[in-house]
Amino acid sequence: MLVIRKATPTDVPDVLALVKELAAYEREPDAVVATEADFLRDGFGEAPAFHVLVAEDAAGAVIGFALYFFSYSTWVGRRCLYLEDLFVQPEHRGKGAGVALMKALAKEAVAKECRRFVWQVLDWNAPAIAFYERLGASVRREWLSVRLEGEALAALAR
Amino acid sequence: MLVIRKATPTDVPDVLALVKELAAYEREPDAVVATEADFLRDGFGEAPAFHVLVAEDAAGAVIGFALYFFSYSTWVGRRCLYLEDLFVQPEHRGKGAGVALMKALAKEAVAKECRRFVWQVLDWNAPAIAFYERLGASVRREWLSVRLEGEALAALAR
Repeated sequence: MLVIRKATPTDVPDVLALVKELAAYEREPDAVVATEADFLRDGFGEAPAFHVLVAEDAAGAVIGFALYFFSYSTWVGRRCLYLEDLFVQPEHRGKGAGVALMKALAKEAVAKECRRFVWQVLDWNAPAIAFYERLGASVRREWLSVRLEGEALAALAR
Repeated sequence: MLVIRKATPTDVPDVLALVKELAAYEREPDAVVATEADFLRDGFGEAPAFHVLVAEDAAGAVIGFALYFFSYSTWVGRRCLYLEDLFVQPEHRGKGAGVALMKALAKEAVAKECRRFVWQVLDWNAPAIAFYERLGASVRREWLSVRLEGEALAALAR
């Protein structure tokens, strides 16, 4: 039986491994520099920067996860649930783990009085886009993501 | 002289007015349902959901603002500074308020050990995209925004 539950600190090695699997799937296998210590510090302390749900299969193995935090909509005047990462291992897909994670996130959004549940998807990831649209989500192609990092960020801060 | 400072609760009416001006500029003049009470509750309590910087002109009038919160990068393993809204009133542009707000945000990102400063821009907003690129930011066109809200969100949560 599939179980969706909140992650505990002992899940951190599994979660980091899944983050790396997701990065490889997203064609950036070397992009993950985060460590278990980073996740323990930032996700499991007094004011966590993120929250994690894990999907566990009948054997008790963690086969998927969802990592989220709360953003804010100044138009709505409420927190939004922002899904940073969603991943189910390829060999465990098609058994409802993805939908179960999304349902749990929707419940959490409603419980926290979020009016919006938001995330991003890569434009070439057609199976994911179709999956999200089946759940009633809409892709907002007019909004582009912008990023400032590295030396450009340091230079602007000086 | 231009001053960039943290907003206080007494700035909330000005900030909400600027949020509405920004929504009108973004061609969704009726999209703002947030109230002053929402902003006071969510931005100025014990665990604020967002933070606000305001730009004040020589006469002490608030002519622009930046509203941000902290997101998280599971690849970097650090909080990111997420800029939700940036706006300078059209009649006060070209005098450095936008750059001053972006510089203050970059400083805040570095101070909070964020490795990334991120935001979104509308694809038709060429002046904003050019402004951001001059600051060294890069547009990541491969990431699409997805949103679930209203009845579709409620249905998934049931």
